[in-house]
Amino acid sequence: MALIVHKYGGTSMGSTERIQNVARRVAKWARAGHQMVVVPSAMSGETNRLLGLAKELAGSAHSDAHLRELDALAATGEQASSALLTIALQAEGMQAVSYAGWQVPVRTNSAFTKARIESIDDVRVRHDLAQGKVVIITGFQGVDLEGHITTLGRGGSDTSAVAVAAALKAAECLIYTDVDGVYTTDPRVVPEARRLHTVSFEEMLEMASLGSKVLQIRSVEFAGKYRVPLRVLSSFTPWDIDIKEEAKSGTLITFEEDEQMEQAIVSGIAFTRDEAKISIIGVPDKPGIAHKILGTVAEANIEVDMIIQNISKGGLTDFSFTVNRNDHARAIDMLKAKVLPELGNPEVLGDAKICKVSIVGIGMRSHVGVASKMFASLSAEGINIQMISTSEIKTSVVIDEKYLELAVRALHKAFELEQNQA
Amino acid sequence: MALIVHKYGGTSMGSTERIQNVARRVAKWARAGHQMVVVPSAMSGETNRLLGLAKELAGSAHSDAHLRELDALAATGEQASSALLTIALQAEGMQAVSYAGWQVPVRTNSAFTKARIESIDDVRVRHDLAQGKVVIITGFQGVDLEGHITTLGRGGSDTSAVAVAAALKAAECLIYTDVDGVYTTDPRVVPEARRLHTVSFEEMLEMASLGSKVLQIRSVEFAGKYRVPLRVLSSFTPWDIDIKEEAKSGTLITFEEDEQMEQAIVSGIAFTRDEAKISIIGVPDKPGIAHKILGTVAEANIEVDMIIQNISKGGLTDFSFTVNRNDHARAIDMLKAKVLPELGNPEVLGDAKICKVSIVGIGMRSHVGVASKMFASLSAEGINIQMISTSEIKTSVVIDEKYLELAVRALHKAFELEQNQA
Repeated sequence: MALIVHKYGGTSMGSTERIQNVARRVAKWARAGHQMVVVPSAMSGETNRLLGLAKELAGSAHSDAHLRELDALAATGEQASSALLTIALQAEGMQAVSYAGWQVPVRTNSAFTKARIESIDDVRVRHDLAQGKVVIITGFQGVDLEGHITTLGRGGSDTSAVAVAAALKAAECLIYTDVDGVYTTDPRVVPEARRLHTVSFEEMLEMASLGSKVLQIRSVEFAGKYRVPLRVLSSFTPWDIDIKEEAKSGTLITFEEDEQMEQAIVSGIAFTRDEAKISIIGVPDKPGIAHKILGTVAEANIEVDMIIQNISKGGLTDFSFTVNRNDHARAIDMLKAKVLPELGNPEVLGDAKICKVSIVGIGMRSHVGVASKMFASLSAEGINIQMISTSEIKTSVVIDEKYLELAVRALHKAFELEQNQA
Repeated sequence: MALIVHKYGGTSMGSTERIQNVARRVAKWARAGHQMVVVPSAMSGETNRLLGLAKELAGSAHSDAHLRELDALAATGEQASSALLTIALQAEGMQAVSYAGWQVPVRTNSAFTKARIESIDDVRVRHDLAQGKVVIITGFQGVDLEGHITTLGRGGSDTSAVAVAAALKAAECLIYTDVDGVYTTDPRVVPEARRLHTVSFEEMLEMASLGSKVLQIRSVEFAGKYRVPLRVLSSFTPWDIDIKEEAKSGTLITFEEDEQMEQAIVSGIAFTRDEAKISIIGVPDKPGIAHKILGTVAEANIEVDMIIQNISKGGLTDFSFTVNRNDHARAIDMLKAKVLPELGNPEVLGDAKICKVSIVGIGMRSHVGVASKMFASLSAEGINIQMISTSEIKTSVVIDEKYLELAVRALHKAFELEQNQA
């Protein structure tokens, strides 16, 4: 008997029929002797419906007071789906109770629409579990110290589930979703992509930050901080699948590096189309320039990803960086208005037709030549690399968007990811 | 400058366009210098949608744990509409903040789905009002001492608004709804029905309990207990109607009997089709029989309205009572199974084709012959009276359902209600 946390995404909660299946699956786990805590998302489409109504009513000013109301509004989606799941569990003959974030309470800071969990009180939940109840806790939301409802931002239910699992020291946190695990890359791009049975926490963190959308990055960070064993698996298997088989399915995100197993050098390939590049040509190569440029961009709340400064020629240098594609035009306008005039109005070039492709693998730590193998593969396909960034366990390149699929397939083959490893 | 509470029903909140109109109306009142508190219902249809989903999932057992979840679910409707109204007010340039029942808090007992308000904390709300904010408080819901969400039952937002007005000692509580006031009777039955400018609290209480659906009866009781001046008015006047005109529109429910004004003997005529009659023919006329019959009915949670016991003939009597039409068949089955065998299986007659018509007027206290005028009018139309019940300010009769409209029109004319009084 173990304490297990299940998390179900919006698609898994998308209709009363699906909610019923979730209830039956959870009941199966409870009947097998486990203490069960479940964190559901809102029914799919519900959060968008609510925020759509708000958008029709909202003015142009987006004050903190406005964001507070958006959170109070959006939080109702999870409150409703949690109550519905609890009703379905009761109909299955289980004792069950649902709690909104403020009832647990799940304490967050006051950053409306993107709050961070600070603590979770486990007293109420443990009391219920001890009485044999299944406890349903709303995902995505919490309450700040002043009693305002907060939400954690898109995908926040993953983070809720991991935080709940950490607070309760759960044996495992199972993230049920509409894919059956973490793949070497997106199977829609590479049909030979293979599901990973295990992936290290650090690799998962890189993949999440590099564009793999299986798990919200903050949930992975949280799992890492509190060492919560995390499993991603499908909610579309039959609910009455054998529980031992189910418990081994999907992908386990691990913290222990298994010494006996041969580490794959590269575990997966992540990519994102959400990037755009900005280059400023011929800026004075002197201290404070990078700060002037990037500081202005940061003030506008635009996040910068990769940054490159070329070697200086005649006291001038070229400065390039990437931002989210949605912020591209705004960032260029900002630079033209606030920065470039002070720098003698150098030329600024924007390119929204780029993409980022990354190889990720914990084995890169101990193997040399991985990056150069990547560059060689791309070169063999005639793909020009525009920017490069590396970390201990990943190498990312920016290339022309039109080569994305070609690059991912070439790299998948070059690193033999289609072959069953370990 | 006064503290004013507005309450808006589901129809008034039925779309983003209507919510915008509510926001503009409230903003107008705030700009006129009033401290404004607003209690909105859920958008029309929302509560039914949510409870419909619950019904699809619910099993047959309806435990307290189940009712708890229904409340957590249904409460989301008002939480969402309150946040939307606040967003619309902010877009109008107002400072505004919304609070769910638990945030105020609105304390209730733990009777899920039909909770009663026990206290309302005014500290937070007064603080916001002092800062010039419009405060939006969710209707229909509260929180019990253990921190469970409760709801007040259908129409509970009226009660919420009155309770909030009482707690804040508001100058007036304005109930905005889809009718423009309280009428002498339903204008769909009597086109000559006239809107009352004022009606006494006691009359309103009788009308609400006798079938007039303008206000939930518990909200009227609450207004009576705390002497909250209450006004029922239309939310479908243009939002920019002159505020002085608006402040005098609709119907005011008063507590002061105006000595200078001639009291109308009869203020209105209420009726309901929701009744059914049960008669037990020839039961032993001895102590304990009424208790045996009505006790059994009460145990099944069936409410009894009128009760009549005929005079005894040869030690036997006839016993009749009315119940809600929905409970009719169940009540008869219950009697046949549990009571009648002990009484020698007397004959039981059911009649679901009846209705109740009532005349209500505070002037009946000081005028004799009002009831007999009622009976004479009905007799003149050839309408047979099956049951009669009276109180200080009302007389009700049960008649054949097919005579309902005829009876209401005849009485409306007999008591000259179409003429403008006072």
